[in-house]
Amino acid sequence: MVSKYPRSVRGCLPLWTLMLQAALIVIFFFFASYDSFIEYPEKVVTQGAVLQDMVVMAALGLGFLSSSLWRYSWSSVAFNLFMLALGVQWAVLLDGFLENPALEKVFIKLSRIQQATMTAMSVLISAGAILGKANLAQLVLLVLMEVTAFSATRMISQQFLSADAHVSMMHIHVFAAYFGLTVAWCLSRPLPREAEEKDQRKTSPSLFAMLGTLFLWMFWPSFNSALLSIPDERKNGVFNTYYALAVSAVTAISLSALAHPQGKISMTHIHNAVLAGGVAVGAPCHLIPSPWLAMVLGLLAGLISIGGAKSMPVCFNRVLGIHDTCGVHYTFGLPGLLGGITYIVYLTSWYKDPLIAFQMLYDIAALSLSLAMGLASGLLTGLILNLKIWKAPHVVKYFDDQAFWEFPHLAVGF
Amino acid sequence: MVSKYPRSVRGCLPLWTLMLQAALIVIFFFFASYDSFIEYPEKVVTQGAVLQDMVVMAALGLGFLSSSLWRYSWSSVAFNLFMLALGVQWAVLLDGFLENPALEKVFIKLSRIQQATMTAMSVLISAGAILGKANLAQLVLLVLMEVTAFSATRMISQQFLSADAHVSMMHIHVFAAYFGLTVAWCLSRPLPREAEEKDQRKTSPSLFAMLGTLFLWMFWPSFNSALLSIPDERKNGVFNTYYALAVSAVTAISLSALAHPQGKISMTHIHNAVLAGGVAVGAPCHLIPSPWLAMVLGLLAGLISIGGAKSMPVCFNRVLGIHDTCGVHYTFGLPGLLGGITYIVYLTSWYKDPLIAFQMLYDIAALSLSLAMGLASGLLTGLILNLKIWKAPHVVKYFDDQAFWEFPHLAVGF
Amino acid sequence: MVSKYPRSVRGCLPLWTLMLQAALIVIFFFFASYDSFIEYPEKVVTQGAVLQDMVVMAALGLGFLSSSLWRYSWSSVAFNLFMLALGVQWAVLLDGFLENPALEKVFIKLSRIQQATMTAMSVLISAGAILGKANLAQLVLLVLMEVTAFSATRMISQQFLSADAHVSMMHIHVFAAYFGLTVAWCLSRPLPREAEEKDQRKTSPSLFAMLGTLFLWMFWPSFNSALLSIPDERKNGVFNTYYALAVSAVTAISLSALAHPQGKISMTHIHNAVLAGGVAVGAPCHLIPSPWLAMVLGLLAGLISIGGAKSMPVCFNRVLGIHDTCGVHYTFGLPGLLGGITYIVYLTSWYKDPLIAFQMLYDIAALSLSLAMGLASGLLTGLILNLKIWKAPHVVKYFDDQAFWEFPHLAVGF
Repeated sequence: MVSKYPRSVRGCLPLWTLMLQAALIVIFFFFASYDSFIEYPEKVVTQGAVLQDMVVMAALGLGFLSSSLWRYSWSSVAFNLFMLALGVQWAVLLDGFLENPALEKVFIKLSRIQQATMTAMSVLISAGAILGKANLAQLVLLVLMEVTAFSATRMISQQFLSADAHVSMMHIHVFAAYFGLTVAWCLSRPLPREAEEKDQRKTSPSLFAMLGTLFLWMFWPSFNSALLSIPDERKNGVFNTYYALAVSAVTAISLSALAHPQGKISMTHIHNAVLAGGVAVGAPCHLIPSPWLAMVLGLLAGLISIGGAKSMPVCFNRVLGIHDTCGVHYTFGLPGLLGGITYIVYLTSWYKDPLIAFQMLYDIAALSLSLAMGLASGLLTGLILNLKIWKAPHVVKYFDDQAFWEFPHLAVGF
Repeated sequence: MVSKYPRSVRGCLPLWTLMLQAALIVIFFFFASYDSFIEYPEKVVTQGAVLQDMVVMAALGLGFLSSSLWRYSWSSVAFNLFMLALGVQWAVLLDGFLENPALEKVFIKLSRIQQATMTAMSVLISAGAILGKANLAQLVLLVLMEVTAFSATRMISQQFLSADAHVSMMHIHVFAAYFGLTVAWCLSRPLPREAEEKDQRKTSPSLFAMLGTLFLWMFWPSFNSALLSIPDERKNGVFNTYYALAVSAVTAISLSALAHPQGKISMTHIHNAVLAGGVAVGAPCHLIPSPWLAMVLGLLAGLISIGGAKSMPVCFNRVLGIHDTCGVHYTFGLPGLLGGITYIVYLTSWYKDPLIAFQMLYDIAALSLSLAMGLASGLLTGLILNLKIWKAPHVVKYFDDQAFWEFPHLAVGF
Repeated sequence: MVSKYPRSVRGCLPLWTLMLQAALIVIFFFFASYDSFIEYPEKVVTQGAVLQDMVVMAALGLGFLSSSLWRYSWSSVAFNLFMLALGVQWAVLLDGFLENPALEKVFIKLSRIQQATMTAMSVLISAGAILGKANLAQLVLLVLMEVTAFSATRMISQQFLSADAHVSMMHIHVFAAYFGLTVAWCLSRPLPREAEEKDQRKTSPSLFAMLGTLFLWMFWPSFNSALLSIPDERKNGVFNTYYALAVSAVTAISLSALAHPQGKISMTHIHNAVLAGGVAVGAPCHLIPSPWLAMVLGLLAGLISIGGAKSMPVCFNRVLGIHDTCGVHYTFGLPGLLGGITYIVYLTSWYKDPLIAFQMLYDIAALSLSLAMGLASGLLTGLILNLKIWKAPHVVKYFDDQAFWEFPHLAVGF
């Protein structure tokens, strides 16, 4: 396809990305330095291992999870790396400024890089919903907007709603899923009937997506326990996540066979529903005192996720006009809501203290805040991304070596 | 293919799996709780890392190892995850009950989950021999039977034959390989001549299988040293496994080139023989005091494995009628026997004490027990799996998105 | 293709490899034993984790990095494992002898196996330049020659040029890249015009290569900090590598889009340039006190790498006649030189001591030594590999299951 835009306009977008990278370096020059405090060697080892697990989940797991659509498998993995690398830099700065605005310097510690990696994962989750709908420059804006919005949400939760670091981070699934869905709603156009059918068919099931799923499945206990500092809570977090994941894997595979008229298993279901248990158990994982509760959560999450995967595409594609490319809604959104609600219910039923009523209201507010901020900032981002200036032609066909120029009508939308 | 069974029968099997999952949750509700004892944080970190290595080996390594047959690559990875998730739940319960039948509660600790993961790996090893021959409900029964049989074998070895936890676990390869082969023998029917040839040809060599092989290769030192608690023994275990694996990799690749009339390397050989060194060094790895002995074991294991891969298919397919889909016999069975025998010989030659004679008899008994239990419980499981009630039509073509309905005569057998 | 050589000659080469393996076992029998000193358990855990990271980088990362050429993807992964397994054995022996020639025994410690794995990675890096140009026996010689040359280079640097273990190891990129390029220059023949074009086209972009790239990207902080023993230096090493990698990922993806006339991203660029930041920051990573310097290095490395990828193939293929199959020069060579020069400049500008002038001269000498030894030993190895005796016919078509016999003219060269 020969581009209709002059060279200068097209050249501008990646150049703008480079400029942004240079600007980030200048900001780091003025405002960031390494923490001179020497941490205990053992703590460095432990935290280093957790950081590595987070990076594996972000770069490999989330990168390959959405690679099952062969038309976007390249973009999925490469753009995922791009957004992660950019998002971490921005999140480190932002977290530092928000945490202590009085200080003129951001001190970089292992724990801050780890939190920044987790914050940047919100972008990677959202990106699953708009895969193939945005170009490089649009993704840069998405990264900056979403990291800012999620960091702000977490800061508000922690400072005004007395949520702890763990719970405010665990709302990442709800925030990111609804952010992504709102952006996808802004970007999508009603597809012609035949394109939609082709879209359904083109999900060539990929072992690569299974690889991403497995990496997420294996390292999820690390993710859920990363911000828990009390050893006993951490242990409970790991165990409960482990059990919830095991049950949701069994549930997902059984239900997928049950839902199919000929008893076959759909790989798309498995990619998504296997992880639902880990998402759902996220917020309450440190409080659950015995495995059966985590297992029930895993079972419910698997049910919701498979149910969503069967009914959502019809509802979303037809009624709302949202095209959720990778099933972000029923992988992260609904199980995340289930987890948030469980956490609130659990707190209430456990403690009989009247003071708890306040805490419960706070927790409801924190969950609603994540949902509302996800929707609001997603809408804002989607509207900005829909402006004419972004509509460069290199949207659909990024990669040199593959010929996937098939849907000319898709390109019209951008 | 339109099924000949009514909807209700087909729907029953996955429903049965869900029921089993619900029953497991109920059992956990009554009989399991987390260990309230707070372990040392450092120990948690170490054991957590070992557990993660085991999960990577089980979910990724063994899942992708057998994905080289493209007809079964999907089933291999997804069913592997299913069996792992189910097997771990069952093994945790069973280990707890067998270890201390007097207690009415199973206390869940990190070390128990780790042992349960290793126990569940026996099912994943066996599954390589029956890949493509069993449906979801049959696999559920296989998981329950094999985990029970292997846990019982380990308990008998430890309580009556004074074997330690490490050695009784290292007989997993012998147990699982012969269990799988016996089940495969019960399930298989003599294939027509042309199908067999097609079967040979269809091993489209897959980089995914190589990925699984590499993950197993890299994490095998963790597996062999996981149950060694004395630091010096643990160190020796890691080193000896490392050396045995290095030598068996070199041996396997050289021998594969040597065995081929035109000096080419067969990927099937490499998938299997590269790991033989790690299997063979398993039982004696903590006792071997210098690297050359481990290297000799690696060399012998490579020789046996490649020799088996060249001669076994003929012998097994033609004479015994066993169709060992993934070469479980010469990857795990024969090298495992080599390791068990080496351990016994080594103990005898090392200690000159007359008391050792008893210990040697015990060790011979423990190895024979694993072999015999593998064969006996495999036969029992195979006979049950061969009953008419399992013969649902969704046996061969599980996955929606792939068309691999090629061998109508294969389906007749099920 | 039916071979023109008699059976005996062809059979000889793998047999020779087996003989070498047997000889190594005999050497280990006489000269190696395990270290009886019991290290602290915590240290074993930490070092074990670092060793595992190195093995993952070597076996998975470097193995899959060069698998993007589908004609060589099998050879790449399997030969990579072969060279790693052989190289580690040889490097352990050699390091032990060179470190303390007076002792008649080499004591094997965890730290020695780790250093040997890193030394063996030099072979894996070089192999990217000669992929598809050497047979199994030639690779054996390559392993022995290169490990010997690199160990000698490191020993000279450490004993005569007062370089520390970290810096002398970080020159691995420069050494290995120029070693590989010189060998490739000796082995290559001018290709006919149409083969070259086909060669360009055949880089079917592979998600497997992306997998290798990601594994290297994720574990590179471990590599750069593996030999730093002071906790503060180690922490700085990890942080600086992390930032350099993030910036070079953003730079590489942006520049690749900028360099393409239609704004598309080339996967080949990304495979290589994404890692350039980690290579460049290697030597000075423990000294850089603030993130912006590491980020500038990452930016420069990305620029150099993408610039090299655009201009090198023309220059190398046409003018010098070197055919650098996997872009080793601009992935490892040029960024490595950048890192070495940065280290020297940094030392000079930082310390105002006159004694530093000597140290700077020493450092320049150490970098030049690595470069010179790489070129010289590469030339020697290339000349030996070019002898008639190696020209067995099983050069191009190794693997049984794939039909990639396409370029008859390519085979003439070997």
